[in-house]
Amino acid sequence: MGARLVGDADCIISSIAVLQDAQPGSISFLSNRKYRKFLKTTRASAIILGQEFLDDCPANALVSDNPYLVFAKVAQLMTAPPAIEAGQHPSAIVAPLAQIDGSARIGPGVVIEGDTVIGARVDIGAGCVIGAGCQIGDESRLVANVTLCHEVTIGRRVLIHPGAVIGSDGFGLANDDGVWVKVPQLGAVCIGDDVEIGANTTIDRGAIKDTVIGDGVKLDNQIQIAHNVEIGAHTAIAACVGIAGSTKIGSHCTLAGGVGVVGHLDIADHVHFSAQTLVTRSFTEPGHFSGNLPAVPTNVWRKSIARIRQLEETTKRIKNLEKQCWKKPSKDPAQDV
Amino acid sequence: MGARLVGDADCIISSIAVLQDAQPGSISFLSNRKYRKFLKTTRASAIILGQEFLDDCPANALVSDNPYLVFAKVAQLMTAPPAIEAGQHPSAIVAPLAQIDGSARIGPGVVIEGDTVIGARVDIGAGCVIGAGCQIGDESRLVANVTLCHEVTIGRRVLIHPGAVIGSDGFGLANDDGVWVKVPQLGAVCIGDDVEIGANTTIDRGAIKDTVIGDGVKLDNQIQIAHNVEIGAHTAIAACVGIAGSTKIGSHCTLAGGVGVVGHLDIADHVHFSAQTLVTRSFTEPGHFSGNLPAVPTNVWRKSIARIRQLEETTKRIKNLEKQCWKKPSKDPAQDV
Amino acid sequence: MGARLVGDADCIISSIAVLQDAQPGSISFLSNRKYRKFLKTTRASAIILGQEFLDDCPANALVSDNPYLVFAKVAQLMTAPPAIEAGQHPSAIVAPLAQIDGSARIGPGVVIEGDTVIGARVDIGAGCVIGAGCQIGDESRLVANVTLCHEVTIGRRVLIHPGAVIGSDGFGLANDDGVWVKVPQLGAVCIGDDVEIGANTTIDRGAIKDTVIGDGVKLDNQIQIAHNVEIGAHTAIAACVGIAGSTKIGSHCTLAGGVGVVGHLDIADHVHFSAQTLVTRSFTEPGHFSGNLPAVPTNVWRKSIARIRQLEETTKRIKNLEKQCWKKPSKDPAQDV
Repeated sequence: MGARLVGDADCIISSIAVLQDAQPGSISFLSNRKYRKFLKTTRASAIILGQEFLDDCPANALVSDNPYLVFAKVAQLMTAPPAIEAGQHPSAIVAPLAQIDGSARIGPGVVIEGDTVIGARVDIGAGCVIGAGCQIGDESRLVANVTLCHEVTIGRRVLIHPGAVIGSDGFGLANDDGVWVKVPQLGAVCIGDDVEIGANTTIDRGAIKDTVIGDGVKLDNQIQIAHNVEIGAHTAIAACVGIAGSTKIGSHCTLAGGVGVVGHLDIADHVHFSAQTLVTRSFTEPGHFSGNLPAVPTNVWRKSIARIRQLEETTKRIKNLEKQCWKKPSKDPAQDV
Repeated sequence: MGARLVGDADCIISSIAVLQDAQPGSISFLSNRKYRKFLKTTRASAIILGQEFLDDCPANALVSDNPYLVFAKVAQLMTAPPAIEAGQHPSAIVAPLAQIDGSARIGPGVVIEGDTVIGARVDIGAGCVIGAGCQIGDESRLVANVTLCHEVTIGRRVLIHPGAVIGSDGFGLANDDGVWVKVPQLGAVCIGDDVEIGANTTIDRGAIKDTVIGDGVKLDNQIQIAHNVEIGAHTAIAACVGIAGSTKIGSHCTLAGGVGVVGHLDIADHVHFSAQTLVTRSFTEPGHFSGNLPAVPTNVWRKSIARIRQLEETTKRIKNLEKQCWKKPSKDPAQDV
Repeated sequence: MGARLVGDADCIISSIAVLQDAQPGSISFLSNRKYRKFLKTTRASAIILGQEFLDDCPANALVSDNPYLVFAKVAQLMTAPPAIEAGQHPSAIVAPLAQIDGSARIGPGVVIEGDTVIGARVDIGAGCVIGAGCQIGDESRLVANVTLCHEVTIGRRVLIHPGAVIGSDGFGLANDDGVWVKVPQLGAVCIGDDVEIGANTTIDRGAIKDTVIGDGVKLDNQIQIAHNVEIGAHTAIAACVGIAGSTKIGSHCTLAGGVGVVGHLDIADHVHFSAQTLVTRSFTEPGHFSGNLPAVPTNVWRKSIARIRQLEETTKRIKNLEKQCWKKPSKDPAQDV
């Protein structure tokens, strides 16, 4: 697990709980300093935590530089899902040309069209609709009510939550004297291995080339990925993000909730955007970028907006003062501030 | 109804209409001053309105301090839905262990898994998928194509609109040297009585403890509620809001459309956020909070952004001027403004 | 096609590709200057482009002022979908009172309720649920897993992508001493001809009157249209936009991604809002409007926010300086800047 045990190696653990609810037999963890206060009163039998909390730990300790990662592994170990029951539910409607691996489960009410290929141990939950020409790699799972349009390729061990739609037409429109003309969306969607796609997230098919989601990408709920977007491996994107067409996001990026990225940009690897930030240009170097306005009392904010509106006039007043005072500002006034 | 009648108590009302479309026999209402102009020409037979509009009312009046509330009650009275037809549609697929009250309606194409319990007079519309271990309280309604994952508890008289997904995995990820490792989401979702959940809204299950939605909470469309969020009773949240993990929202709050709230915050009761505001810290007192930028002409806004970008330099110029002018700013210059 | 041929009129075209992937026999296009560099090495046999790129074109050229429009028409010509196979899938559940045109296709698992009317050559994809009292005009297509609630009217040649929900209840609530009371939503939704509606977009029914989407309107994914909104003809709205109740948007408008529009506004024809802009007042004249904050490095942005917070104080310091310098600012200092 990558943790150092401090305490009783024979302690039996039977449940997982947060510190404040733990009972004897529970394992818990502490990674956010905010919850340190619960160490005093917890009844947990074992706690995964960082070295800095060890002195305050009242139970057996699993010490790690990354306690949240150790917890993830422990929880995976303790909650492994049962093997799926292979076979097709009688209510599923599977096209004659579709190739379904014998170890896959096809749930009730599922529709599989055309010449789609479903791999080993794939689990297609109730109500999913899968169009023609799709491929789903081994051990992937569509939880329920997922829609894959035609020609969507899904890698191995991909997890797709309910309501997600993959392969819908991109928003391609040409303007003919005021009337919008649809541009046929001829590309597909290609999703790598070990990807997770959240509930009600949408990923459009490409216009000519494909929309591509790299290996290990994690997408939260209600994300919109437009046509021909490419997302590099191991990038994580939080809920309510929208990425416009043909933008490339690098690998190992993080986009916090509500971020918007306009189209045709290139974002480098290891770029991080904070919540509700709007990205309007390419960023070619790693780093953290922001452009959001944290909430303050509304009456205070109204004054701020008024002052922002006056900035043009404010600058003129300063210019005027500088002329009246006869002396130019020094070349490098930074030391004065 | 809580209104005072001014006019003919024997007037027969047979329809509901807005002021400008009303016909004899219609009842209408006026609560937004913007629509006052329609009083002059309306043909409505009765109008629910505030005292301040009574002098201009050309019809029978129902006078109230809260005309919109009176209208809600009148409309409920006049449009009570017919009783549901109990029974399971032959196309529904209901697991043998599920307990379905005899007065419930299970619509066409519905899938109910495992040991789920469905209460009295519950109405499950076409295409809904309900996972194992769920409980749905009496008189709740899932309109159509709603997905409940496993172990979701729904109270009484809850109304859930199409496309909503409740109980999907929270976005729990630990980083293992650049690769994201899934943290199993072991909690559930618990939804109180009299809750309304809008179309395509998503509510994730908790990581260890549950995600909790209090009694009387009203959620509009396309809202994202992350794992372990708690929302207090009678809070109303408008469309396109996202609330990140482990944040607690108090009771009787309102969040306007597009608000984003980051994770691990505590928001007190009676807190109100205006549209598109980003909430990055806890608010422990009631009040109204904002942080948004209303639209202005794009050429004006470009100058504003440039001036905002210069604020660091602008402050230095002011500092410099203050030094050149030899006199310090007075301690309390507020009286000068 | 509206283009001028420069080159060999007998060249046979068999495929569509982007410039960088084109092979002999491919047709490609160039409308975004960013991709001009690919002209040098492309193997395309024909390229649709503007006059300004003609000198650099290494292949047969179709020259147009609007190459993207010409491409749209060429692509439509080359990729016309096959005629649909009329008939109802045996798993579809169609109410006895529903009127389905004999040329329509009703896919697997579809549910059609009540007295709904389906026009000629309509294509209802797998898993769609259509409530009672709906009307769907000729040649419209619901791709899959679309939900229409009761009494939704859809025009001709409308295309609706998966997960879209049309006709869900508007968010109408009256407050009764802290408790929200539902206002019945008695209106319907009326959608014109040639509309496209993106994946997981939601359109609420009106409270009393209808929600109305004009002819030729194009809606991207994950858009929220609240009750009683009216959208004029040929307006295009990008993903993740939210429009609050009773707002009227004019014709030929464009709303970029993530825009929010508050309720009860009037937006004129030919109004354009840039990405993530919040619209809080009516705009009665055509034009471009903005209110967003492009991303910058987070450490720079933190200083900007601090300076914005200080603007009230900054203005006082300027006022103080003006008093100390004894001279008033000139009446029109604009010439000095």
